[in-house]
Amino acid sequence: MNEKAINEIMEGVIKSVVEQLSENAPHISVYEGSSETIPVELSARHVHLSEADAIELFGAPLTPVRELSQPGQFLCEERVRLIGPKGVMDNVAVLGPARTSSQVEISKTDARILGINAPVRQSGNIAETPGIILASQTGIVGLEEGVIIAARHIHMSTADAARFGVADNEKVSVRLEGERPVILEEVVVRVDDSFKLAMHIDPDEGNSAGWNKKVQGKIVSIAGGAGNGLLSH
Amino acid sequence: MNEKAINEIMEGVIKSVVEQLSENAPHISVYEGSSETIPVELSARHVHLSEADAIELFGAPLTPVRELSQPGQFLCEERVRLIGPKGVMDNVAVLGPARTSSQVEISKTDARILGINAPVRQSGNIAETPGIILASQTGIVGLEEGVIIAARHIHMSTADAARFGVADNEKVSVRLEGERPVILEEVVVRVDDSFKLAMHIDPDEGNSAGWNKKVQGKIVSIAGGAGNGLLSH
Repeated sequence: MNEKAINEIMEGVIKSVVEQLSENAPHISVYEGSSETIPVELSARHVHLSEADAIELFGAPLTPVRELSQPGQFLCEERVRLIGPKGVMDNVAVLGPARTSSQVEISKTDARILGINAPVRQSGNIAETPGIILASQTGIVGLEEGVIIAARHIHMSTADAARFGVADNEKVSVRLEGERPVILEEVVVRVDDSFKLAMHIDPDEGNSAGWNKKVQGKIVSIAGGAGNGLLSH
Repeated sequence: MNEKAINEIMEGVIKSVVEQLSENAPHISVYEGSSETIPVELSARHVHLSEADAIELFGAPLTPVRELSQPGQFLCEERVRLIGPKGVMDNVAVLGPARTSSQVEISKTDARILGINAPVRQSGNIAETPGIILASQTGIVGLEEGVIIAARHIHMSTADAARFGVADNEKVSVRLEGERPVILEEVVVRVDDSFKLAMHIDPDEGNSAGWNKKVQGKIVSIAGGAGNGLLSH
């Protein structure tokens, strides 16, 4: 038996072992990418307003008061009241700039309190979502749709994406290294050169992970698609 | 080259592949145990009372109204109000039978509303936890300690434990196959022949996993200790 034959056998054995391991743990893939960590930010409940809805509620365009981590995004001086069939939430943050359509992002906990059956969606994807009533001190607006539970996601620049070996819209599993460690699966990667590296989770996810501002995320697997350095499916 | 030499090479290759896989994913182990799923139950906020506290609050011992999934445990007719420095929660369930010490189990969301800095603990482990005020229509009790966020855990009989290849107090990682799939790490296994197989999570964990009554858990790795069928630590 010559060296070439031995190498062929070895390759066959390695392939077979790797395949078996993948079959035994179909949702676990061994990702050989970066061990770089990702800052994890908690998105508390908030509202994005269209220009028309902002004027209806406040009689004027939105007033920036503080910049947010994603470039161009800001917290506004204005606050709104959310009115649902079962409950009310006051003093809810409004984020700018104004968008084409108003959108309300709440947690599942909030959804139960308000009595609104909000689906888990990526920001901007509000077709056939429930509506809500927004109120200020001086105005009221009824949204026909726009209430979502924001799906967890990671903002990345193209340089970040290349480093992590992931592509826009790809899903990854991320380990949060908090007091109650968890791996969040199906976290959507969103790539845009205006984005600053940050993972966004909601308060329910934060509470169940024992989140604090120091908690970091680590990509432990890529669910498929364009990712490289990927062992299984 | 004879058969023995080939086998030696193969063993070397397999060992090398397994080591590489383990190194690349240090917290992921390939568990070859049962693929059996575990029912997942949501523990809403509730109170266990000592006999003395029950009598102080209600003037009589607790009144069973419905059996719970764990044999011998029951929901009581009685309800209490939780009073914290920042908030109040009404109509909170009381579970029986009476215990040596009263204990209040809430979620992190509840803890924020009440203004109580409750730690994540296993049930019964209440040393140096915060206190709270309990009230009924007719009585009031101040607890010096006993408020916890119940750590996620799995109840198992010894037969279950043998089937899953785990031991009492061992920690496992469990994948919850809900709308927002997650792997909860450091889930404590509690083995007792009076236990019925069930995993208990809190409402924050349920919300972040997209829990409903049909959601099942699957043990995907064992964190160490007496587990068998385990590839890496």
